[in-house]
Amino acid sequence: MALVFHSNSDSAEAWLAALGKHLPDLEVRVWPEAGDRAEIDYALVAHPPRGMLKSFPNLKAIFSLWAGIDHFSSDPELPAGIPIVRMVEPGLTRGMTEYVLLNVLFHHRRMLEYLAQEKEKVWKPLDTPLAAERKVGVMGLGALGTDAARVLAALGFDVAGWSRNQKSVPDVTTFHGAEGLEPFLQHCEILVCLLPLTSETRGILNRRTLGLLPEGAAVINAARGELLVDDDLFHAFGTGRVAGASLDVFGYEPLVPEHPFWEHPKILVTPHCAAVTRPDTGAQAVAENIRRLEGGGQLAHVVDLDRGY
Amino acid sequence: MALVFHSNSDSAEAWLAALGKHLPDLEVRVWPEAGDRAEIDYALVAHPPRGMLKSFPNLKAIFSLWAGIDHFSSDPELPAGIPIVRMVEPGLTRGMTEYVLLNVLFHHRRMLEYLAQEKEKVWKPLDTPLAAERKVGVMGLGALGTDAARVLAALGFDVAGWSRNQKSVPDVTTFHGAEGLEPFLQHCEILVCLLPLTSETRGILNRRTLGLLPEGAAVINAARGELLVDDDLFHAFGTGRVAGASLDVFGYEPLVPEHPFWEHPKILVTPHCAAVTRPDTGAQAVAENIRRLEGGGQLAHVVDLDRGY
Repeated sequence: MALVFHSNSDSAEAWLAALGKHLPDLEVRVWPEAGDRAEIDYALVAHPPRGMLKSFPNLKAIFSLWAGIDHFSSDPELPAGIPIVRMVEPGLTRGMTEYVLLNVLFHHRRMLEYLAQEKEKVWKPLDTPLAAERKVGVMGLGALGTDAARVLAALGFDVAGWSRNQKSVPDVTTFHGAEGLEPFLQHCEILVCLLPLTSETRGILNRRTLGLLPEGAAVINAARGELLVDDDLFHAFGTGRVAGASLDVFGYEPLVPEHPFWEHPKILVTPHCAAVTRPDTGAQAVAENIRRLEGGGQLAHVVDLDRGY
Repeated sequence: MALVFHSNSDSAEAWLAALGKHLPDLEVRVWPEAGDRAEIDYALVAHPPRGMLKSFPNLKAIFSLWAGIDHFSSDPELPAGIPIVRMVEPGLTRGMTEYVLLNVLFHHRRMLEYLAQEKEKVWKPLDTPLAAERKVGVMGLGALGTDAARVLAALGFDVAGWSRNQKSVPDVTTFHGAEGLEPFLQHCEILVCLLPLTSETRGILNRRTLGLLPEGAAVINAARGELLVDDDLFHAFGTGRVAGASLDVFGYEPLVPEHPFWEHPKILVTPHCAAVTRPDTGAQAVAENIRRLEGGGQLAHVVDLDRGY
């Protein structure tokens, strides 16, 4: 049983060790050292080179190293009929929940204003409501969004969630579909975007939708840069509809030094670091899924390519 | 039944309304309009003028508007034998827990470094452990410290607590007394100080104790400025023992513009805004305590002046 690994980071060594620990029977080959391609059963990839995946004639499944699959799902040479599995593992989930919680609290507690005051040496306490008086909304209720919404609700925030199809999360008011988007957005004093990037969600944070937020809202995007129309965010700052943003993802990464996001006083820029797949827990999730399939069961977290996640 | 109110903020109107709601029988007089001083049963105060409290001959209890009582306990004219009650109310507690959580996550997720990178337009993701791999310590396990420790533990942090006397908090490793201080500090990659200011705790964060922290620790002080020896913090930055700090309280407030804390790249300064007593929930706590005493019961949260909190 063999797996080919490809990543554009330097994480191969850690993954080899972790996969060896959780699935000792698995032979792992690091691209481009793939050996006899007919022997490869599985691929575990981030940003695979175009055409790479179709070169394995006996592939049983493609595992994404990341929660999203947009880093290779648009490859026109993607082999048809091979299940694609998105990464769902507790390390990635908890990392994202930490990022979301930090950034929700950051805007809830008016830290952009406090940082500006600190720069000017201004001592001025600002009124802040308690979490129970603060309305937060999470767009996307998959593994990441559900965990973040649950933790925000446990802290006392008034949490709503929005997803494509109807979902239920304890202590969270859920909305779904096109007709649920407007009432959801009207709730979001702080909006957290954790949607997958699909043909339906591209540019979903735009002039119309940002215009539905309460006055002075905050926008947190930790999913994919292409979900947000950059110019429409600037427009929303101009009207006062949006007062602050935390952006971890961008249409083109790394964000170029010339990009106005870097210096914008209402934007907190971080370098796509909200959540990373952890080799140990990630390898365990892949190993469990492979064992499930090899034992005659079904793979978990298989992507529906029609809906895009 | 009459209560005299004194605050150095402009909150009197909100407190009058809240006390009227929770204890309609109580007549509230706002200092200096105290009327016949012999009629005053209770005082609810922040920073009362020296000598004010001894001018009421029939005082049954003094309620502090704040969690700490150091804003008047050193008054040499404080009337003897009158119970002093510190403020314990859920609004104050939850506000502090939000501040603590925000600042623990801020240092846990290396936000001082990310803010510095943003300023230089540097795109560089940094390694960060998950909460479960991060050791946090809370000094002071009263109402505030216990709630903060509990919430940090629920988020997965490896939490220790330290208090003067032995305490027990679920999922928190507790230390106490002088002999427990060293092992506690050695645990604290992120140290949160929520101690009361007493003769024993003044200057407790000093060169010796900061020197016991793990290399590159973060220090969060949301209690009282005098707990920290400012120069010793600078020394700890110099040795690398401490890598970042969030300071909300200072020996002299407002922090003067000349103070080096404002511009220090490793310090996040906020203007004593971590937690405020909320009139509605605070008045409810005072009302319940007065009803308890008037009904023949014992006051809750009475300060032991010998220990100082």
